[in-house]
Amino acid sequence: MKFYIMTLFPDMVLQGLNTSIIGRAMDKGILSIEAVNIRDYAFNKHNSVDDYPYGGGAGMLMQAEPVYQAYKAIEKKKTAEQSPRVICLSPQGRTFSQGMAEELAGEEELIFLCGHYEGIDERVLEEIVTDYVSIGDYILTGGELPAMIMVDAISRLVPGVLHNDVSAEFESFQDSLLEYPQYSRPEIWHDKKVPEVLLSGHHANIEKWRREQSVIRTARNRPDLLEKAALTEKEKELAEKFLQPEDNCDNI
Amino acid sequence: MKFYIMTLFPDMVLQGLNTSIIGRAMDKGILSIEAVNIRDYAFNKHNSVDDYPYGGGAGMLMQAEPVYQAYKAIEKKKTAEQSPRVICLSPQGRTFSQGMAEELAGEEELIFLCGHYEGIDERVLEEIVTDYVSIGDYILTGGELPAMIMVDAISRLVPGVLHNDVSAEFESFQDSLLEYPQYSRPEIWHDKKVPEVLLSGHHANIEKWRREQSVIRTARNRPDLLEKAALTEKEKELAEKFLQPEDNCDNI
Repeated sequence: MKFYIMTLFPDMVLQGLNTSIIGRAMDKGILSIEAVNIRDYAFNKHNSVDDYPYGGGAGMLMQAEPVYQAYKAIEKKKTAEQSPRVICLSPQGRTFSQGMAEELAGEEELIFLCGHYEGIDERVLEEIVTDYVSIGDYILTGGELPAMIMVDAISRLVPGVLHNDVSAEFESFQDSLLEYPQYSRPEIWHDKKVPEVLLSGHHANIEKWRREQSVIRTARNRPDLLEKAALTEKEKELAEKFLQPEDNCDNI
Repeated sequence: MKFYIMTLFPDMVLQGLNTSIIGRAMDKGILSIEAVNIRDYAFNKHNSVDDYPYGGGAGMLMQAEPVYQAYKAIEKKKTAEQSPRVICLSPQGRTFSQGMAEELAGEEELIFLCGHYEGIDERVLEEIVTDYVSIGDYILTGGELPAMIMVDAISRLVPGVLHNDVSAEFESFQDSLLEYPQYSRPEIWHDKKVPEVLLSGHHANIEKWRREQSVIRTARNRPDLLEKAALTEKEKELAEKFLQPEDNCDNI
């Protein structure tokens, strides 16, 4: 899978993704991530890519032409027959989710457009962007970090990227329940002992305990996820017991 | 404001945050970001910080002791009287929001704990973590990118970090409406003309047009935000016209 990231900060994007799991997948040739510097497509001698917004207002706007030329340069390189989807990171967008990550992991190529300054000239967005995506309801200084988040979430779903496919499958959200608590050596740490059942070697009991812990945690922390989970009647009763009263919603 | 980030990938974190607005604020001494390498607190000769989970399962777990020692080292440096809050990035957590960013921007110091591998030994989390936060409902390969997202969102609310405080105030979400479209030079680009009103110099009309565009966009893309917005009766009627039918929710 090939990712192109249109940005004013190519180093930031590459360094932030060149680590660990994603880095190894790039070395193995499973993934490729190319940061395209929009500034390389500046069309004036000052190498500037921003200007004041019409109608006034604080800050500077990224101009249409450099963004457009950067996009055209990527389009020339595309290997797939279809033009790749162009995702603009924006608070305007549909909220990113694991479901969207799964859908996008099926694409051969994706282009991300990272805004900076106060935004991007609307006309080039109309012309090239196919999807607007927001990673959450908070404001960031630019689109680079959210693009990296999306590349990370999508990449780990590409076959061969994770060491074992089991990991991707059994983690939080995949089955709509949060993960159970985990323990590693030593058996006793700061007077806290690893739960007995995990030392028992009895696999069925361990599975049962972990599943219960997942149900309890989801009920406590993310009751909104319970609806989507396929719970047995007994598990529903268990969840019921651990639901927090509504007025505690600002408890952490 | 001082951020400490406990991580196995300190370079990734520092490089990803050392750019642009955040970088300038660090140069000016308004912000300080320190990445604390958990591996520096490994307690065995192999320098390892992970081990198998008790009870079996895929993947490796971060052990309690190196995380704890890294935390103790930060605690020794703290300048505030109170121990700083320790935020663990986790799908288990409360969902990050602009409101939470505003709340956290009031702290003097914050510690972020980034998990990797399959998770962190539960016992050290119980001992040091004060807040569990998730940046959204998707799975990532580690806690570094979400920590960077939080640092970015919080930092830009710290006085002096943005060039003009106006920018922080008038952007998306702050007033619960999405931003209006923006345009910069040239006046005509690819046969698309900048809306006449923005060239008029008539400030009241420009404000009116922008506000209407914000209402329309919010109605179209994020109707859930409309409830929180303080709309006039006329604006409510306008929003009504642009609400999408429910079954179009996978339209982008």
